[in-house]
Amino acid sequence: MRILTSGEFINETKDSSPSESNDIKLDSTVLEVIKHVRKEKDAALMQYTEQFDDVKLTNLLVSEAEFREARELVEEDFITALTQATENIKEFHLAQKEQSWFMEKENGVLLGQKVTPLEKVGVYIPGGKAAYPSSVLMDVIPARVAGVNKIVITTPPQSNGKINPYVLVAAEEVGVDTIYKVGGAQAIAALAYGTETIKKVDKIVGPGNAFVARAKKWVYGDVAIDMIAGPSEICVVADETAPPSYVAADLLSQAEHDESASAICVTTTKEIAKNIKNEIERQMEKLERKDIIKKSLEQNGSIIIANNLLDAFDIVNEIAPEHLQLMIQNPTDYISSVKHAGAIFLGNYSPEPLGDYFAGPNHTLPTNGTARFASPLGVYDFVKRSSIIRYSQDALLLATDQITKIARTEGLTAHANSIKIRKDYPHASCENK
Amino acid sequence: MRILTSGEFINETKDSSPSESNDIKLDSTVLEVIKHVRKEKDAALMQYTEQFDDVKLTNLLVSEAEFREARELVEEDFITALTQATENIKEFHLAQKEQSWFMEKENGVLLGQKVTPLEKVGVYIPGGKAAYPSSVLMDVIPARVAGVNKIVITTPPQSNGKINPYVLVAAEEVGVDTIYKVGGAQAIAALAYGTETIKKVDKIVGPGNAFVARAKKWVYGDVAIDMIAGPSEICVVADETAPPSYVAADLLSQAEHDESASAICVTTTKEIAKNIKNEIERQMEKLERKDIIKKSLEQNGSIIIANNLLDAFDIVNEIAPEHLQLMIQNPTDYISSVKHAGAIFLGNYSPEPLGDYFAGPNHTLPTNGTARFASPLGVYDFVKRSSIIRYSQDALLLATDQITKIARTEGLTAHANSIKIRKDYPHASCENK
Repeated sequence: MRILTSGEFINETKDSSPSESNDIKLDSTVLEVIKHVRKEKDAALMQYTEQFDDVKLTNLLVSEAEFREARELVEEDFITALTQATENIKEFHLAQKEQSWFMEKENGVLLGQKVTPLEKVGVYIPGGKAAYPSSVLMDVIPARVAGVNKIVITTPPQSNGKINPYVLVAAEEVGVDTIYKVGGAQAIAALAYGTETIKKVDKIVGPGNAFVARAKKWVYGDVAIDMIAGPSEICVVADETAPPSYVAADLLSQAEHDESASAICVTTTKEIAKNIKNEIERQMEKLERKDIIKKSLEQNGSIIIANNLLDAFDIVNEIAPEHLQLMIQNPTDYISSVKHAGAIFLGNYSPEPLGDYFAGPNHTLPTNGTARFASPLGVYDFVKRSSIIRYSQDALLLATDQITKIARTEGLTAHANSIKIRKDYPHASCENK
Repeated sequence: MRILTSGEFINETKDSSPSESNDIKLDSTVLEVIKHVRKEKDAALMQYTEQFDDVKLTNLLVSEAEFREARELVEEDFITALTQATENIKEFHLAQKEQSWFMEKENGVLLGQKVTPLEKVGVYIPGGKAAYPSSVLMDVIPARVAGVNKIVITTPPQSNGKINPYVLVAAEEVGVDTIYKVGGAQAIAALAYGTETIKKVDKIVGPGNAFVARAKKWVYGDVAIDMIAGPSEICVVADETAPPSYVAADLLSQAEHDESASAICVTTTKEIAKNIKNEIERQMEKLERKDIIKKSLEQNGSIIIANNLLDAFDIVNEIAPEHLQLMIQNPTDYISSVKHAGAIFLGNYSPEPLGDYFAGPNHTLPTNGTARFASPLGVYDFVKRSSIIRYSQDALLLATDQITKIARTEGLTAHANSIKIRKDYPHASCENK
């Protein structure tokens, strides 16, 4: 874990050349998979599942018996935790729910915005060796709160051809009974274009590996997607009131995700920086995933010594972190100093895993600096809006000259005519009589 | 203009194979442009402007003198119309403005959602022969209402090296004084990655041709975009109360956009269908853009005879049109029958051009069936949200077992540790003392 000054950090950021996000080789593989699935449908899904997941399936759909079996395998205290997490997530997301609205203006004018849930949503859940029941909650609950009727999950099978029982139990908890055993770019293609078994959806959400991310980029436009997720990041701002042992534990928790995960601490004195560094080294040795953590911290970990808190927030806003922990005195007072962050955790008792699993706000957050322009997954991602426009004859006649003037300026004379005909022939309502 | 039954229409829709949205040849050109701009920056912009727009520029930025000149060239009644349109658009979009919110829970838990405007937005306005001052209003005003500070416009220059005066005056009206003379994929690349003159933005919005649309798809993820726009569409539902002359004028106005624009009418009797068809033929001959209109209607125009209104709305929802006009008795009662549409125009005096230029709701709407999942451009496109999470020591201790249980289930033991250390060492706050 390197210790840098804020000046050194800013210089490094400036010097780093922008990454080339378009990987042609990966793309050609992903495009090939998409094309093949569009053409051969279920047959292609079976073939890729055998090829990539090493499982020969006869049926893509998880059966009722498999759900029952999962329920028996899972511990009672997991169900208790899951139920409480579900309740917290539901409560938070209910506050995001938007209503349709209308405004009446003079002369009988009515304008408005109709909010309608999406019809069909596909949720991708990573699988194989890992199990992410929390992703099931975080991706499905906002869709449910929005009012989406049809929610399906796709997830790659384990080597025994089954789906992780914790994932199945989480799906049941949030009322999803349609789960397909398919992963990778092929699952994204199936959700985007449909196969015999998997129906085309309106939006695809959920995390995934590089193939999944690129496939989402390619189908974007034909279908909606949540975001293209990159490696996970944390930034902790710590002053002298932050226990170094807590800060270290939080940085280490982020670093265990994978080697490309990034953990950055911004602090205000050299002494705090050293204390945190020592704690990291002390705690790291006892952690199960220390090999991943070591590599991640070597490659992407830094402790930055800022000149003061103002300087610290400049660095935070430069990074635009996915997760931001403010472990400083009176953290709530500094919310307005944060311009860009996916989620802001306040104080010494709000570590990131609290948000990952339990508190209520979504854990699907903008990564890789995209918090500059993107938001956590939310209920707003599962609705679309339609504008409503109603003018009366009187109101339109009053506006005729102005509308036709702009239309003609743009060279769109048939547009002008559509307005003008209503002025020139105001009694056309008898035409059909 | 073909007349079809609803059964025939649905069968045609089913039979049509999904379009191949990934055009590799177009993509390789666009990717080449993007790479070149990332490398050569301003020099590449100058070079492409000479190559594609046939203009040799020495300065990309529109000067103050050019703004003044534009103001003198533009008619007073255009300014009047523009000012009223601006007022209407502002009023509607103000109603979309979201506030940050917080919820307090027991044990000192605070959760919330912070809404922050984007910092930098780039607006692409098509140029060359055409002029779209209305796009300037529709793209800039929601960003302004959201609170975006830095808004710049890029638009390709005319053959004389200048920008259309109506566009400049519209930009001035909405307070944008930074306009760059550059169009095409090169403008999108410049906005996404920055050059010496054009600073990198957080989001790119605005309509454009196929090159612009593909470039937006490629930079998506590195920067936010509004949508990938396709050809424009209208669907008019007309019963016996709809004047055929009005319906015809509205379909024709849509068809004049370009040959790929689509104009569909859904009606309930053969007689109404015939009346509308006759009116279309009668009015078409007198229209300036009749060549485009003819081709557009031949290729993409239909009048569909539905069995009844219920059947008509099934067709509407199948199409998910960008613009939907309900020219039927008591149209307001049918708002809830519409599942998917970008904008819904109610009654005989709410023709689409009213929405394109004047009423207030945005004219940037989801095309090509994407109204199934996408919304009109709005204030919500120019903000991002950050979650707020604050737990007290008491609240976290109560949740420790549940959070660590889920973390361990996912195999993320350092996550569990970040929670557990706060239970095992509750007095760590003295570590720095």
